[in-house]
Amino acid sequence: MYAPLKNDSFLRACLRQTTEHTPVWLMRQAGRYLPEYRATRARAGSFMGLATNTDYATEVTLQPLDRYPLDAAILFSDILTVPDAMGLGLSFVNGEGPRFASPVRDEAAVAQLAVPDMDKLRYVFDAVTSIRKALNGRVPLIGFAGSPWTLACYMVEGAGSDDYRLVKSMLYSRPDLMHRMLAINADAVALYLNAQIEAGAQAVMVFDSWGGVLADGAFQQFSLAYTQRVLKQLKREHEGQRIPHIVFTKGGGLWLEDIAAIQPDVVGLDWTVNLGAARARIGDRVALQGNIDPNVLFAPPAAIRAEVERTLASYGPPIGPDGRAGGHVFNLGHGISQHTPPESVAVLVDAVHEVSRRMRSA
Amino acid sequence: MYAPLKNDSFLRACLRQTTEHTPVWLMRQAGRYLPEYRATRARAGSFMGLATNTDYATEVTLQPLDRYPLDAAILFSDILTVPDAMGLGLSFVNGEGPRFASPVRDEAAVAQLAVPDMDKLRYVFDAVTSIRKALNGRVPLIGFAGSPWTLACYMVEGAGSDDYRLVKSMLYSRPDLMHRMLAINADAVALYLNAQIEAGAQAVMVFDSWGGVLADGAFQQFSLAYTQRVLKQLKREHEGQRIPHIVFTKGGGLWLEDIAAIQPDVVGLDWTVNLGAARARIGDRVALQGNIDPNVLFAPPAAIRAEVERTLASYGPPIGPDGRAGGHVFNLGHGISQHTPPESVAVLVDAVHEVSRRMRSA
Repeated sequence: MYAPLKNDSFLRACLRQTTEHTPVWLMRQAGRYLPEYRATRARAGSFMGLATNTDYATEVTLQPLDRYPLDAAILFSDILTVPDAMGLGLSFVNGEGPRFASPVRDEAAVAQLAVPDMDKLRYVFDAVTSIRKALNGRVPLIGFAGSPWTLACYMVEGAGSDDYRLVKSMLYSRPDLMHRMLAINADAVALYLNAQIEAGAQAVMVFDSWGGVLADGAFQQFSLAYTQRVLKQLKREHEGQRIPHIVFTKGGGLWLEDIAAIQPDVVGLDWTVNLGAARARIGDRVALQGNIDPNVLFAPPAAIRAEVERTLASYGPPIGPDGRAGGHVFNLGHGISQHTPPESVAVLVDAVHEVSRRMRSA
Repeated sequence: MYAPLKNDSFLRACLRQTTEHTPVWLMRQAGRYLPEYRATRARAGSFMGLATNTDYATEVTLQPLDRYPLDAAILFSDILTVPDAMGLGLSFVNGEGPRFASPVRDEAAVAQLAVPDMDKLRYVFDAVTSIRKALNGRVPLIGFAGSPWTLACYMVEGAGSDDYRLVKSMLYSRPDLMHRMLAINADAVALYLNAQIEAGAQAVMVFDSWGGVLADGAFQQFSLAYTQRVLKQLKREHEGQRIPHIVFTKGGGLWLEDIAAIQPDVVGLDWTVNLGAARARIGDRVALQGNIDPNVLFAPPAAIRAEVERTLASYGPPIGPDGRAGGHVFNLGHGISQHTPPESVAVLVDAVHEVSRRMRSA
């Protein structure tokens, strides 16, 4: 049905298999820092206009690949499509980020929640299939979803937050309601990711963007347990191919052992974590993805190259003597900034390939 | 000159000496959640009107002590007084937080920076002396300052930030400028804290509120090294009394060993850190301060008490068999929210005292 993969370095690294270079992709690589993205976005009229239109979503997903020799593509979409399909009424206010018309703040609202009909998310699965075809085997396609906890943050707060007061008030005051919401979110996310896999996604990533705002103990109970509930339901194979599962908890560096214990294939790391230390802690069980500070891309080329070299060196030799001790997927530690100079990305991607090839031949 | 201390439990715990209960105070305990604070603030006209007036600063510092049996007072002030004294022009825009009229964004602006004349901060030292007198030995008084890096964040960004793009761009593009600014900040902070100690502060705390936004490696180089430069210059004793030094790095849980290595007496912890795990890592060298999520205070009394119990239990027995293995100062993991119900604070403080006394007698 689809063309065979020409570059499978990303999938191989996820499964801790040998690669000729360290594969690299960037969170939010299709985005506002690219003038061609802004042009398509202007034609689409709105963010959701872009995300819900198969042709536009395909076009912007491929834009960064036409500029840079990236080793993976990631579906252009948003983590909030799932609560939107639950009927919460998602909109994007310019310059302010996402907003829900009907946030979930009391027992009655939680009682109304249910796993949405996946037909409401058909536009996402159509985009996945369209992108996979358009990629024509160049690189693998990553599907994604928000973690149950991260979705709950937005569902309760109704928008971004800097203190998570409403969602944490519910967590500490009515843990029963929070558990109910998280269970529904988890089952919805699992269905959603499995449908992306069936539509053509070759790896899937769970973004626990707000797991790191939780207290120790609360993280394990209210975030990780529900990410685990997602993973347990996910397809591990599709049409004979292994589908790697990636879990990224921003601010989760203290809990790496716990995260590895729910058995994702890859653990994403933000820039606060030392890659070598993370590898020593969990690298015999999972591959690692990350983790340069996106603000490095505002530095001159020599400084970007130096940081790439430092990051690759901190991970250490890519593969151990048994051929499976490692597995590093290079990425930023968080989404790329909209203010990033596009030429900095070229410097980064080339440096990752060049330095990691050199490290392998050393 | 001053009345002798009636309750020295806070100072004793900082120095890992035996106490009858776990002492407790709260970051930002004098603040907007208290109606009496809001009344004084209204009379003062502005935040800086409050902070620069000795009588008002004394009044609001003592307000929480009149309500709750807290074990320490903390100077009412702001970390940005130091860059304000450097001539950056601090103002507080209502609802938006602090702002500098003249942010430091280029080589010329960095070249202008110098350690300010401490006479410009006389109002702070006068407040310290006034508060110490007014306390009349009830509990010890804590002085404080921002860390060199945290001050630099505000100095470069000119206000709060959610991505620290400007300050990190300078860090990665012109590390020479950043190091120059940080050295000046460190020397200014050391002078400032020593003057607070001379004016009557019985312990001092360095708030590295934004250390946790740095990448591993950058944190050690650009935040911790300069906090160390501060500590090295600080008085350890004044008039025969040991002055405990507290360092709090929000988001610094991964770097506890590094933080303990610069030899503060106390390491402050946010809520992402497990106290027992932190104690196992560094608790033989320093006391620990923290670390309940301030959002716990939005829960009903029984839930607050349960979280207090969990937190005290996670630290474990307060003092080890050698009589000096521990030392726990109870606190939140970050400043108290302005939306906190004042009655929740009473529940928390009472629970800390009651449960920790019970644990000692068990």
